[in-house]
Amino acid sequence: MASNGKHGSPSYVPSAPSLPESYRQQYFQGSGGSYGYWQQHSQGNGSSYSYGQQQGPSSYGHSGFPPGTDPAVISSFQMVDRDRSGFIDDNELQQALSSGYQRFSLRTIRLLIFLFKSPNDPLRVGPKEFAALWTCLGQWRGIFEKYDKDRSGKIDSMELRDALYSLGLAIPPSVLQLLISKYDDGSGSRVELNFDSFVECGMIVKGLTDKFKERDLRYTGSATINYDTFMSMVIPFFVSYN
Amino acid sequence: MASNGKHGSPSYVPSAPSLPESYRQQYFQGSGGSYGYWQQHSQGNGSSYSYGQQQGPSSYGHSGFPPGTDPAVISSFQMVDRDRSGFIDDNELQQALSSGYQRFSLRTIRLLIFLFKSPNDPLRVGPKEFAALWTCLGQWRGIFEKYDKDRSGKIDSMELRDALYSLGLAIPPSVLQLLISKYDDGSGSRVELNFDSFVECGMIVKGLTDKFKERDLRYTGSATINYDTFMSMVIPFFVSYN
Repeated sequence: MASNGKHGSPSYVPSAPSLPESYRQQYFQGSGGSYGYWQQHSQGNGSSYSYGQQQGPSSYGHSGFPPGTDPAVISSFQMVDRDRSGFIDDNELQQALSSGYQRFSLRTIRLLIFLFKSPNDPLRVGPKEFAALWTCLGQWRGIFEKYDKDRSGKIDSMELRDALYSLGLAIPPSVLQLLISKYDDGSGSRVELNFDSFVECGMIVKGLTDKFKERDLRYTGSATINYDTFMSMVIPFFVSYN
Repeated sequence: MASNGKHGSPSYVPSAPSLPESYRQQYFQGSGGSYGYWQQHSQGNGSSYSYGQQQGPSSYGHSGFPPGTDPAVISSFQMVDRDRSGFIDDNELQQALSSGYQRFSLRTIRLLIFLFKSPNDPLRVGPKEFAALWTCLGQWRGIFEKYDKDRSGKIDSMELRDALYSLGLAIPPSVLQLLISKYDDGSGSRVELNFDSFVECGMIVKGLTDKFKERDLRYTGSATINYDTFMSMVIPFFVSYN
């Protein structure tokens, strides 16, 4: 399999923005505590998820949100968390994100919950995860708008490639084409992605790339994986995604 | 990651029934023609997909079906292929399989098309693929019924584990539990799978296992995979599956 020559090998970019701490903790559960990789690569990479690295849960307010969280974010969460359980499910998350972004498809929402979920509740997100998700989507929205040069609300395949690359993700061209084909409406016109599809697409790539990185701690672009590990890496995506 | 101790390591079983030849050909496109692995393991393993190994396309009738295909299978195909194009899409396949099996969900149907698709048409199946798919489902139905001891039309997680194992698939218990959770209706009662869900579940496991095997040609249970290959192995499932 040829690597992506344009961006060199390994194809993913070591300075990729990290997913939030809760996500990394989840990933490293049971891995023997090998945090060196993330520490090495999460410094000075422009990650916007710094709160979890400097502040433990004890510094969180009783609302559960990290200090300094935008009141609009807290309000969006609390508006849908009507039973004040501190957790919101897929429909509630869809509604909560609508206030700041747009109405995402439930498929994208479930993928986001899978990637940002609370370690204690695999089907819902709490305040900490919601704040991290909101920040991440803000970053992705910025990148999306940067590449949506004509402000049409859509980006094409080349713009998607560049947008993913700026998120630290350089996938093989054949995989990119396949991903894009998912959004082909069969009309013969050029395939374009709206922000919902961009997030869905990018989160699949990001989630799988991070799973691979866990097995490639030295950043060689190659990993030795046994069968059980491979299945455990991939199957959860299928379960969460449908 | 612990291997599945019950069944030893590697967890998948070398005598696993193979997917049909068209599937194997598709998998080996671009791999330098390393057919040795399948030849080595497909002999004497009870596979019911032997027609493709002995007979080339030239021996097919003008209907496109392998010689000896059950007329009921041909009839099921032709009844839905109204334009006589020789290919049927997802809705048509759903209808065609209803005559011999049941009405599968479109999600399962799309997964089946992905795994059995014609090399020339990624979204449809032709007579050869349809015949192979019918045979495969017959085999899976037999196994399902064997483990559905009370003839309820459903199997539980332990029966699923044993059914998959008898198909040559031994996945880690944690992955099995996760797969099963997909079918949990939240009522608190024991999760059970009908034949549709069994096929969906099993085909995901089978498809990913076969992808892994391509990278583990010596059957060691472990494979060295580079990033581009990993993404190319997994992303197509996501695209096909939704």
